[in-house]
Amino acid sequence: MNPHFQPVALHHASRLINHGPTVLVTSAHGGRRNVMAAAWSMPVEFSPPRIAVVIDKHTFTSELVKASGGFALCLPTPALLDLTHDVGQHSGRDGDKFAQYGIDAHPGPVLGMPVMEAGCAAWLECRRIPEPHTEGAYDTWFAEVVAAAADTRVFANGHWLYDETNTTLQTIHHLGGGNFVRAHGAARARQP
Amino acid sequence: MNPHFQPVALHHASRLINHGPTVLVTSAHGGRRNVMAAAWSMPVEFSPPRIAVVIDKHTFTSELVKASGGFALCLPTPALLDLTHDVGQHSGRDGDKFAQYGIDAHPGPVLGMPVMEAGCAAWLECRRIPEPHTEGAYDTWFAEVVAAAADTRVFANGHWLYDETNTTLQTIHHLGGGNFVRAHGAARARQP
Repeated sequence: MNPHFQPVALHHASRLINHGPTVLVTSAHGGRRNVMAAAWSMPVEFSPPRIAVVIDKHTFTSELVKASGGFALCLPTPALLDLTHDVGQHSGRDGDKFAQYGIDAHPGPVLGMPVMEAGCAAWLECRRIPEPHTEGAYDTWFAEVVAAAADTRVFANGHWLYDETNTTLQTIHHLGGGNFVRAHGAARARQP
Repeated sequence: MNPHFQPVALHHASRLINHGPTVLVTSAHGGRRNVMAAAWSMPVEFSPPRIAVVIDKHTFTSELVKASGGFALCLPTPALLDLTHDVGQHSGRDGDKFAQYGIDAHPGPVLGMPVMEAGCAAWLECRRIPEPHTEGAYDTWFAEVVAAAADTRVFANGHWLYDETNTTLQTIHHLGGGNFVRAHGAARARQP
């Protein structure tokens, strides 16, 4: 547990992934658990808070998500950049990646999915909305966010607080091929 | 037309939106056209190159996309930050936003969708894959990328080139409420 983490109101949950961060998808069922990286996720609805995420139908994660009905999205910071790349390189069927990489996780409050706080900026615990057609045709899974939390040093009162003081807590965004960028240079649009 | 724009190979198209940039969705049918902002889009497949984007089913854009079978995603740079926010504030049913905002666009090569190059880093012309259920239930539209191009000063040979020399050409990422961040601080994961 990270003492800086506080719950995020569900109507603000979409903001956590609004800007396209790469996420770690965690899952668990029947004593087995897994973590994979996903660059492809997005909100689809503010209220109820719903998201979509691409999880290859052949992965161990997809097996656990189908069995348990849930997963979590954890948002890695630059501290977990190598880990984020590494966990995408092999399957959790070959062994528990949490143990292998020394990942600290605890059960989420609603579904008991493994949520990560050390090295992460936020997490969202999600309940699968079964959509077999899109899961099969596009590897695209829909889910409702049922709990969320964030590090208050970088996300508070429903807003990301991106500035020079918290660069180590900011999200990372995968460009492809193991290259990442950090969100940066906050700017505000002219208000009507 | 922007002389720095060059075609992007379709198997690299997913990289254009892999890191979660905010996009402008452009559409046209029967002499009418529109542009709206969307923070919610993602790739769903490398090959064939497919994407998903959230377009509210009540919008003028959704009407044009259904009628024409296509749309384009244009990636604004910081130069279009205010415009990106502004075009999300009212409907194109009330008048042509391209004329209203002085937006320069030309017909895309495959579907004739309006593609924007001035002030943009890249564009993807997309053919709708009709999925009435997800369009209705989640405002989520699937499409195949049929053409793409990018400014070679910031994307070349299938890779984003983010550095201090091209900050004005980099993508913007919406945090919510008119607040944006720029991708920045490129870092490469340890290679296995």
